[in-house]
Amino acid sequence: MSSTYGEKLKLSIFGQSHGPAIGMTMDGIPAGLPVDFEALNTFMARRAPGQGSFATSRKEADQPEFLSGVVDGFTCGAPLSAIIRNTNIRSGDYSNLKDCPRPGHADFPAQMKYKGYQDVAGGGHFSGRLTAPLCIAGGLCKQWLEHMGIRIGAHISSVAGISDISFDWISPDLTALQNGFPVLNATAGKQMLSEIDKAKAEGDSVGGTIECAITGLPAGLGEPMFGGMESKLSQIIYGVPAVKGLEFGSGFAGSDLRGSQNNDPYTVTDNKITTITNNAGGILGGITTGMPLIFKVAIKPTPSISRQQQSVSLGRMEQQELSVQGRHDPCIVPRAVPVIEAAAAIAIFDMYLLDSKLWEE
Amino acid sequence: MSSTYGEKLKLSIFGQSHGPAIGMTMDGIPAGLPVDFEALNTFMARRAPGQGSFATSRKEADQPEFLSGVVDGFTCGAPLSAIIRNTNIRSGDYSNLKDCPRPGHADFPAQMKYKGYQDVAGGGHFSGRLTAPLCIAGGLCKQWLEHMGIRIGAHISSVAGISDISFDWISPDLTALQNGFPVLNATAGKQMLSEIDKAKAEGDSVGGTIECAITGLPAGLGEPMFGGMESKLSQIIYGVPAVKGLEFGSGFAGSDLRGSQNNDPYTVTDNKITTITNNAGGILGGITTGMPLIFKVAIKPTPSISRQQQSVSLGRMEQQELSVQGRHDPCIVPRAVPVIEAAAAIAIFDMYLLDSKLWEE
Amino acid sequence: MSSTYGEKLKLSIFGQSHGPAIGMTMDGIPAGLPVDFEALNTFMARRAPGQGSFATSRKEADQPEFLSGVVDGFTCGAPLSAIIRNTNIRSGDYSNLKDCPRPGHADFPAQMKYKGYQDVAGGGHFSGRLTAPLCIAGGLCKQWLEHMGIRIGAHISSVAGISDISFDWISPDLTALQNGFPVLNATAGKQMLSEIDKAKAEGDSVGGTIECAITGLPAGLGEPMFGGMESKLSQIIYGVPAVKGLEFGSGFAGSDLRGSQNNDPYTVTDNKITTITNNAGGILGGITTGMPLIFKVAIKPTPSISRQQQSVSLGRMEQQELSVQGRHDPCIVPRAVPVIEAAAAIAIFDMYLLDSKLWEE
Amino acid sequence: MSSTYGEKLKLSIFGQSHGPAIGMTMDGIPAGLPVDFEALNTFMARRAPGQGSFATSRKEADQPEFLSGVVDGFTCGAPLSAIIRNTNIRSGDYSNLKDCPRPGHADFPAQMKYKGYQDVAGGGHFSGRLTAPLCIAGGLCKQWLEHMGIRIGAHISSVAGISDISFDWISPDLTALQNGFPVLNATAGKQMLSEIDKAKAEGDSVGGTIECAITGLPAGLGEPMFGGMESKLSQIIYGVPAVKGLEFGSGFAGSDLRGSQNNDPYTVTDNKITTITNNAGGILGGITTGMPLIFKVAIKPTPSISRQQQSVSLGRMEQQELSVQGRHDPCIVPRAVPVIEAAAAIAIFDMYLLDSKLWEE
Repeated sequence: MSSTYGEKLKLSIFGQSHGPAIGMTMDGIPAGLPVDFEALNTFMARRAPGQGSFATSRKEADQPEFLSGVVDGFTCGAPLSAIIRNTNIRSGDYSNLKDCPRPGHADFPAQMKYKGYQDVAGGGHFSGRLTAPLCIAGGLCKQWLEHMGIRIGAHISSVAGISDISFDWISPDLTALQNGFPVLNATAGKQMLSEIDKAKAEGDSVGGTIECAITGLPAGLGEPMFGGMESKLSQIIYGVPAVKGLEFGSGFAGSDLRGSQNNDPYTVTDNKITTITNNAGGILGGITTGMPLIFKVAIKPTPSISRQQQSVSLGRMEQQELSVQGRHDPCIVPRAVPVIEAAAAIAIFDMYLLDSKLWEE
Repeated sequence: MSSTYGEKLKLSIFGQSHGPAIGMTMDGIPAGLPVDFEALNTFMARRAPGQGSFATSRKEADQPEFLSGVVDGFTCGAPLSAIIRNTNIRSGDYSNLKDCPRPGHADFPAQMKYKGYQDVAGGGHFSGRLTAPLCIAGGLCKQWLEHMGIRIGAHISSVAGISDISFDWISPDLTALQNGFPVLNATAGKQMLSEIDKAKAEGDSVGGTIECAITGLPAGLGEPMFGGMESKLSQIIYGVPAVKGLEFGSGFAGSDLRGSQNNDPYTVTDNKITTITNNAGGILGGITTGMPLIFKVAIKPTPSISRQQQSVSLGRMEQQELSVQGRHDPCIVPRAVPVIEAAAAIAIFDMYLLDSKLWEE
Repeated sequence: MSSTYGEKLKLSIFGQSHGPAIGMTMDGIPAGLPVDFEALNTFMARRAPGQGSFATSRKEADQPEFLSGVVDGFTCGAPLSAIIRNTNIRSGDYSNLKDCPRPGHADFPAQMKYKGYQDVAGGGHFSGRLTAPLCIAGGLCKQWLEHMGIRIGAHISSVAGISDISFDWISPDLTALQNGFPVLNATAGKQMLSEIDKAKAEGDSVGGTIECAITGLPAGLGEPMFGGMESKLSQIIYGVPAVKGLEFGSGFAGSDLRGSQNNDPYTVTDNKITTITNNAGGILGGITTGMPLIFKVAIKPTPSISRQQQSVSLGRMEQQELSVQGRHDPCIVPRAVPVIEAAAAIAIFDMYLLDSKLWEE
Repeated sequence: MSSTYGEKLKLSIFGQSHGPAIGMTMDGIPAGLPVDFEALNTFMARRAPGQGSFATSRKEADQPEFLSGVVDGFTCGAPLSAIIRNTNIRSGDYSNLKDCPRPGHADFPAQMKYKGYQDVAGGGHFSGRLTAPLCIAGGLCKQWLEHMGIRIGAHISSVAGISDISFDWISPDLTALQNGFPVLNATAGKQMLSEIDKAKAEGDSVGGTIECAITGLPAGLGEPMFGGMESKLSQIIYGVPAVKGLEFGSGFAGSDLRGSQNNDPYTVTDNKITTITNNAGGILGGITTGMPLIFKVAIKPTPSISRQQQSVSLGRMEQQELSVQGRHDPCIVPRAVPVIEAAAAIAIFDMYLLDSKLWEE
């Protein structure tokens, strides 16, 4: 609950945007797993700010410092813990933020819940900056899954209504997705960037969607009912700020189809059972089918915009105009791509740890 | 994990479609809550089979027998437990189902996970019949929430691509939704029924979407990150069979908008803070805003169809044709409506139990 | 929390002493484990009432009816659920029990917690009768552990101050412990029975201790800190009514020793590392050493006695004499022996399920 | 599980003795609780090394640095996280410790579990040093409980067989316990110190017991069965290194008594229900009675002793003599006293957070 996730793996994320540091502790990880710090830093860099016109210009190194759990490049069985120091420390007077909540932000519900004790500086614990420790945890899980032949890749599937092409759901190509603006169709990508620039120029922001594919999963992973793959993935993915929608396989479009269209026929290829289509997105009854796991995430437009908006003064209980100043991403979708991969990696790795091999040995 | 849900409230669901009984245990419920058995039976009846042309003709009373937790019409602090006896007990030879998996069902992944030990009769633990105990638990939570002024209502928002009108997200009308085919627009409802009949006549099935609204929630309920309202709701809603998509407020459509369009401006009405629009679906940063909580669920078309489909023989590892016999709902969306309400009620009630009032007294 | 236990295995126990039924649901059990119903009934019979002068004369069959989770004698992956119908159903007026709490029982704190809504008939959910479903779950786990070469056995180590001899902590003999009054030294057993009869004749009761040994555990099972063997075992063992003390290995006596006396020296025997003594009780740092796991439990004297005791009237807030009528065990220690074995089996089996073999294959 | 504890409060402890830092994250804490850093440092100092002849001479400041969760002296609703930098960083060659396990330490089972990947320097994650972050978390919970009138105090009840007098279980005096060697009887304390010095001079160590009392608890706190006070407390207390026994109230001694002796008679004093004796240690049926909560803990003698001991070489699989060098406490009981208080405070505070006040408002 709260900022804690997982069953065998226990992830705890802490910190506020302008506090001394942000970080994570990941408990329940077996000993002896290799930790590739360089690969982790490369992964973290995909989420880091300051990469393009679409991102905030705030620059932070975002290099995690490991405090425990790793000895000589391998996990040692103790909980992994790593922190990132904040260089933009809380200072100044933020009391006006407690009085005048920013539309689309957690300011108002946080004020109702925490009665003014919450840290409002930079969004506090609700800041998108908290996805950095999520990427530390997820980046490691992603490494370990890759050792088992499981690959996770995501791309921007739409921005501001401009759509990228979709993954091939039978055999998704996950190569070359690791740049700052990962799309499958370069032309669509250019149009998206143009829409972002336009919104930025107008003091506005845009949203988009992210499609993610996971390949190499065996059939039979997951638990029935509330322990199914969709439940496990959705719990962590909805923990990523700005996510407002999630669908697996044909999802909402599939609900318009007939059973004869949406069911995936089975076939035998190379002495292996596969399906001809993959509308199920690799999951039936909460359990993997062995086909690629496919899901799509809806990211709302960045709520911080410099255009004037209508808010209220909580103290005076009257209308008040507001314009959010400071550095903001006009579109957070590109930076959310590795975050979605990280969240998925954590969920899948936990599922692996939970899958008891006891009786099959 | 698995068939268990909740943090303070602990729900455990058990049973197989053709086993002796299905049931649920709900632990962590305070003592002294009234239990209205008649209202529960009325709620259960909305999910029960055999109601119309769209539902299976299998008839079962579905009246829960309470084994513990209730004394003289009030909860007594002991775990609540209730069962429903199955009248269609497992019999006959189902071994062909282990060999030839039904497309769109959990048969194949279950075979991979459970190595042939799973109960295949009627879908076993994966059967939609397991939503009956979910409705016992959820029906009770719904009663208790109503005592606190919180109402939960859902309607069929589309079937086979035919759309109902949407709830008013500022002030949804939840009256008169409690019939077997709950729509807001009667004309759309007739068209949907016509599409269902057409599919049925062709040995096929259709899917659809369900929109749910929760009114009366205070601002400030929910936890940050993985304990947010979206995370809590999604975990249980994806535990309902056939759910493949879920979005909150403007969801996927909102991802096409600009921040200035999607942000909900604040205003003061009757000395209360509200928002003028409700694209957030009543949730910001995982925490309720005090506006109605709005979400939409995508239900895939019933996988059981009598039309011939392509499958495989797992034993012979070769192609095999399959036609699923027996009684099936050509559209499960109507019966899924109370199930979604039940799932939401359980999640919300657990959130209430978790919300510590300790320091406010 | 509450009546729910376990991490991968999720045990939920429900029912009240005089309600319709008591039972349990055990989720998270792998498919394909054999279920020996006859052996389970034999195990259950060790706990059943009506066996000797030391036990209550209330007779109930205590044969569990399985509602789900087993198909053709093997677990099927669905949650296991079983119930036992109560033949002594709640009836009559128990309101006097709400007014005048029995010393040593949960009556008073339950009244404070549940405000009068609790089921007081026969102790309700606090009744020792709830150890029957614990024995269903534990009896099954015990069977499965035995398939892995792990044996669990306990004996009465003292009653009313009369001590049995102790297990050999290096090589405990667990044979022939399965009778209604399991002691290692028959003479001590006779003295204990004589003390029980004496107390019974005087309208009084006696307590005692139980020593339990678990053999066949590999070295390396358990987790650091709060996930250690002692933590896992203690949580479930203190869930057994009347347990007030628990020590591992040399325990309290060991705290009087010097390090040079209490440390267990290592040696090599048959190319295997063992310890010469076993003061650690088979656990160091929360993790098994491969030596027998040894612990001792203190059981308080049965609080229900017919001798007059001093209580109060909660309504009148004044002193009131009380004599507890009805059938009660003058000593519950013999019947608690299989309950302790069951509790231990559940904890150990959960530890096995949690122990990820993922990376060792 | 593992190094994670709690239900509403989620405590995660990380670090190794000679790693970069040790620390803790505590999630689920309400916003608005005052944090008294000075009082916390005073509490931490009671556990810190280098205080007397009985303690190791290793000196570390042990001042926690808070990374998140506190703003302007109050909790802000974000997870609390604090670290303590290790000044004795891992260095040198510890490979001999992997080969020759120290008797009484976790070295051997850790080697079996982690296959040589564990951090052996200074005991790694198994070091008693990890009780420092436990004291950060517990020290804060203790402060917050004190605001509610709940006091927790413990004293050394025996060392090396020398016994202190016991608390008055009806009205324990918790004043003046906060020194480095807390005993109720000064003469007994001197004898204990003399025994410790003797053992130290002989290169040996001694163990002891700690008695803890908690006053001010209302009647009715706790859950039935596995969620009872004894279960909750035992799980965290057995997570403290070197604890091998735990009893509540009359505990093991009570198991020798008759029911008429061990039952606590009720009485009315000042219009309040109390018991005349408190053999129950303030808990019946897992739920508080409103009397002081009393428990006793057995601490084994420090396993690190400089006297020669018998061990084995795991590499050569043959006998080997071992003498543990370095600085060690000849008796850890005095420093364990605040640790036990801290552990109890965490468990009790979690119970408070779990106790739903929802329906009583």
